[in-house]
Amino acid sequence: MSGEFNLIEKYFVNRQPQRKDVLLAAGDDCALVKAPGNVEIAISTDTLVAGTHFLAEANPAWVAHKALASNISDLAAMGATPAWVSFALTMPEIDEAWLAPFCDSFFKLADYFGIQLIGGDTTKGPLSLTLTVQGFVPEGRALRRDGAKVGDWIYVTGNLGDSKAGLEVLLNPEQNRAKPYAAELEERHYVSAPRVLAGQALVNLASSAIDISDGVIADLKHILKRSQVGASIDVSTLPISPELRQFAPDITSAQQYALTSGEEYELCFTVPEENKGSLESALSHTGTKVTCIGQIRPVEYFELHNNGEPLSWNLTGYDHFKVN
Amino acid sequence: MSGEFNLIEKYFVNRQPQRKDVLLAAGDDCALVKAPGNVEIAISTDTLVAGTHFLAEANPAWVAHKALASNISDLAAMGATPAWVSFALTMPEIDEAWLAPFCDSFFKLADYFGIQLIGGDTTKGPLSLTLTVQGFVPEGRALRRDGAKVGDWIYVTGNLGDSKAGLEVLLNPEQNRAKPYAAELEERHYVSAPRVLAGQALVNLASSAIDISDGVIADLKHILKRSQVGASIDVSTLPISPELRQFAPDITSAQQYALTSGEEYELCFTVPEENKGSLESALSHTGTKVTCIGQIRPVEYFELHNNGEPLSWNLTGYDHFKVN
Repeated sequence: MSGEFNLIEKYFVNRQPQRKDVLLAAGDDCALVKAPGNVEIAISTDTLVAGTHFLAEANPAWVAHKALASNISDLAAMGATPAWVSFALTMPEIDEAWLAPFCDSFFKLADYFGIQLIGGDTTKGPLSLTLTVQGFVPEGRALRRDGAKVGDWIYVTGNLGDSKAGLEVLLNPEQNRAKPYAAELEERHYVSAPRVLAGQALVNLASSAIDISDGVIADLKHILKRSQVGASIDVSTLPISPELRQFAPDITSAQQYALTSGEEYELCFTVPEENKGSLESALSHTGTKVTCIGQIRPVEYFELHNNGEPLSWNLTGYDHFKVN
Repeated sequence: MSGEFNLIEKYFVNRQPQRKDVLLAAGDDCALVKAPGNVEIAISTDTLVAGTHFLAEANPAWVAHKALASNISDLAAMGATPAWVSFALTMPEIDEAWLAPFCDSFFKLADYFGIQLIGGDTTKGPLSLTLTVQGFVPEGRALRRDGAKVGDWIYVTGNLGDSKAGLEVLLNPEQNRAKPYAAELEERHYVSAPRVLAGQALVNLASSAIDISDGVIADLKHILKRSQVGASIDVSTLPISPELRQFAPDITSAQQYALTSGEEYELCFTVPEENKGSLESALSHTGTKVTCIGQIRPVEYFELHNNGEPLSWNLTGYDHFKVN
């Protein structure tokens, strides 16, 4: 009974407060949980592979944060309250020097959001992590991608572009390490804050929402496709951090970072005109910065402009299986 | 929007009948489901890695069956009724010649058990699969590992040992391919039938249960540890298929296969004396063969015997992270 079993017990069992709706966590064939009667359960699965989603030599605390935060961000995008997480860890060999800081960071973030680890699997193989998170959303109130209407305003939370800048530092340190705020942007690539409170506040106000994992343009296009609408984006309104503004060579470049930066884990959402006032007040209570970056247009209309001046930038989002 | 998105739509979306409790499957940040009010949800996660759990060149239809069946088997071991599955697929590149038979087999088995794919992830990296299955069990009635009592009888479903024999054929074809029933045993290693009906029938009869993924000895020891009891096993009673009996060089060898064969996905369970009669009648209705292989003893007592004659075999189960 060595190896896998001791590893699980040492690093993963009894690390957290017990939720009342978790009847059985580790130690049996399945976890047993009980959902409240008046909710829908929102469920999301994400895999992070070493070499594809993080560098194998990355700080394990950052990797843990990124893995869990990216999943919680999917719950936030539906307006759900996090509850449970299952975690499958594949690693080439037991590496306690990696596991210890990984788990400390994982449980710190999990505890912050009141999400309990209920089970999972540990296997031998190339380093990768798959998480399935579950949360509750009031019946019929989930934020979906298919509710945007022509005339709705398009918003994003936080700032955009930092994650992509951080990734460039990670991938090409020699060219980028000396640029302003390189270290801060690198950390931001890994350590984002899922917008759970903002998502909950949007439940009765937004007409659609998505989290930004592939770049705001690519993710907004998911909303447009599902809602059968188009959009107009004013790049001059994009929220850009002072750090990115100094890292990027010019404002155009910073705006292009903002439009295509994946793994931001900010929310992009649409709000009908009549909810605009309530939105800004509701979000201010959560301490979340929001910025209106454009407006929903009729289907097949998609325009980028700079304060009214049309742009013809050729931008693409992130796609793991893309050939080029 | 090429690559990942088209891949998901082509192979995974709209392949199954829609369950009424699945409000939203693919196409948004999360799936949305609704659990009945009077059940507990049983949740299990398993990862299969190419090279560790299956050979990269294995028949993709068998790999799909094994991945889903091994997860459904965990539900069966709790007495749960399968409902939903999330599936994370990591592969080095899009391989449609692999995906097409994989998905056909996956959905065939899923449909058989009425389990709906509700979401997942596709990522680029070394081939591996992580599934999270969920099912329902009546409140407070789940079969757990911690209920075995001294005097309870120990049972297994089906036959034991075929999976290990099949694995030997796979791993050492030159030495084993000419042995009797080599091809049948190889297929059995991949294609087992999860004991869902048997698990449901055991809900009010068994005092504990587990599915056999690491070998019956290793898995029974999980029950013994959690229940704080010991056991006595009569190896002469082990259910051995006629095919294994001919494949193995002698009966002792076949019995040792049976005790240590992992990934069988049969159930091992304990039954109080007073439920023995009801058990055999209930299981016969499901068409499941069951065999009594021993009895629960006081803690720290663990004995293998051959029809009364003590044995001192040194057996170990399967452990991915075991050093030797």
